[in-house]
Amino acid sequence: MFRPQIKVLDCTVRDGGLINQWQFSDDFVRKVFIALTLAGVDYMEIGYKSSEKYFSRSENGSWKFCSEDDLKRIVGDMDNKMKLSAMADIGRIDYGDIPKKSDSVLDMIRVACYVKEVDKAISLAHHCMEKGYEATINLMAVSKVIEKDLDDALEDLSKSDVPVIYLVDSFGAMYSEQINFLAKKYFAALPGKGLGIHAHNNQQLAFANTIEGIVAGINHLDATIYGMGRGAGNCPLELLLSFLKNPKFDIRPVIEIIQEIFIPMKAKVEWGYHIPYMITGILNEHPRSGMKAMSAEKLPDLRQFYESLRDDTQLD
Amino acid sequence: MFRPQIKVLDCTVRDGGLINQWQFSDDFVRKVFIALTLAGVDYMEIGYKSSEKYFSRSENGSWKFCSEDDLKRIVGDMDNKMKLSAMADIGRIDYGDIPKKSDSVLDMIRVACYVKEVDKAISLAHHCMEKGYEATINLMAVSKVIEKDLDDALEDLSKSDVPVIYLVDSFGAMYSEQINFLAKKYFAALPGKGLGIHAHNNQQLAFANTIEGIVAGINHLDATIYGMGRGAGNCPLELLLSFLKNPKFDIRPVIEIIQEIFIPMKAKVEWGYHIPYMITGILNEHPRSGMKAMSAEKLPDLRQFYESLRDDTQLD
Repeated sequence: MFRPQIKVLDCTVRDGGLINQWQFSDDFVRKVFIALTLAGVDYMEIGYKSSEKYFSRSENGSWKFCSEDDLKRIVGDMDNKMKLSAMADIGRIDYGDIPKKSDSVLDMIRVACYVKEVDKAISLAHHCMEKGYEATINLMAVSKVIEKDLDDALEDLSKSDVPVIYLVDSFGAMYSEQINFLAKKYFAALPGKGLGIHAHNNQQLAFANTIEGIVAGINHLDATIYGMGRGAGNCPLELLLSFLKNPKFDIRPVIEIIQEIFIPMKAKVEWGYHIPYMITGILNEHPRSGMKAMSAEKLPDLRQFYESLRDDTQLD
Repeated sequence: MFRPQIKVLDCTVRDGGLINQWQFSDDFVRKVFIALTLAGVDYMEIGYKSSEKYFSRSENGSWKFCSEDDLKRIVGDMDNKMKLSAMADIGRIDYGDIPKKSDSVLDMIRVACYVKEVDKAISLAHHCMEKGYEATINLMAVSKVIEKDLDDALEDLSKSDVPVIYLVDSFGAMYSEQINFLAKKYFAALPGKGLGIHAHNNQQLAFANTIEGIVAGINHLDATIYGMGRGAGNCPLELLLSFLKNPKFDIRPVIEIIQEIFIPMKAKVEWGYHIPYMITGILNEHPRSGMKAMSAEKLPDLRQFYESLRDDTQLD
């Protein structure tokens, strides 16, 4: 698949940081930055933009905050063709804590929100755009909302100035059918806007669903190196770059950093396909119970884990 | 997806045995048999049917041979609703070593062959059918043949009496596009026959490609418990059963046996997504070089592994 409009965003540090509270060394982040630059990746999402009044630096690494000092430690001396992005969550950042683009090395701020918060997200994204950033909105957990609410949110988004909206499979619950259905819905409801996709790997479908999104016309693609990410992780960047035939991409720097850093790291920190994450995925549930099961000293009885989570979803 | 015609075949012991020369204990095979029966799986492929003149029992476990004595040790005392299958490779079994169906607990023999061997495969499959078995032909490594040769093979198959032909992605090289293209080609060339799909997981697409096959109308689906299989492994049975809505399937016995047997086993024997297998997959190569890399004491330089395999493929 070669489509010049396609943009790949790597969110290894941002999404992967959910595993370890963003306690990455500067050396690690810098090596990721260099590998992504060499690989021709369009955007690196280097962390969350959060206010220090809501989170402490004693509990969270630098990439929970992405202050200009943090960012400049990594990229201050580099000739940066690759764009830098940070994610902002509703209620975790104050407008005043976002510098003007001209004072920042960030290029883009992606606002993540639930469907019910879409108006707050639009307001924050507009604020970022007024300060000079590119902005997107990532609509999370849409596999759990009724269609009427989703349609209302899409209508609000269609009236906004935000140019790119992401289809997000937060729980790794979707099959190609759902991706195709939602991509068509988003395109129809959001004329003139670009779409992105962010998939999770609970059912080993993050890469396949990203391909499904590409086939449906989605051009903004999220991935992480070696699929690193919370729980089952994300669409593996190396697979995506290999699938994309755009001449600007080179898989080799990604293979190198996987061998140097990510294979040893995966031996210590478990992400990827595991039955507890598969179970939350097939039941369309938040991965938190799966993460609890995986972090226990001994894996709980998995049949019972499945039965109880399934019972939780049967309320009537 | 609920389609009553869908049949699931588990080939955990047959394909998984490629990892350890079929050195499974009787207890293991019996537990797999029971779990699959309880899960409602239609066929269990319990091994290869091979002649002892070509392979020795000192180097290969029972499931390389599947003699009636071997089979009866496992299932002799069980009320067997699930059908049993064995795979036969061209040139590794003599016709005389296949008993009549009435003397066997096997229900089906699947003949695996390369495109150039299709006439031999048809002959063997017809022989099995004459002896009373169900038979299929699994056309391997079709991602490496020119279309003319594939079309010729399909024409031969269309004239045969073999009722089910499998689309096989031997190298884990295919994307949904290729699966869709080939499924349409096979259906068009093989009027009146059923199609099967057997996918490998080098690019984390075995499950997704199986779904793509189902959407294209394929009803015979191969999977293995926890994706166990040579190299990157196969379509995970637990994901497939969860996707299929057919009331006869129950995922819970599969979750149980994964916890009891396959999670501990995977800590010792590496199958699944690993960069050497990914590289052979994206380069459409046999996984043997990936298996060699994975079994080395120390992983080789992976960038160089990629470069050299890529050079191998550039001969002109």
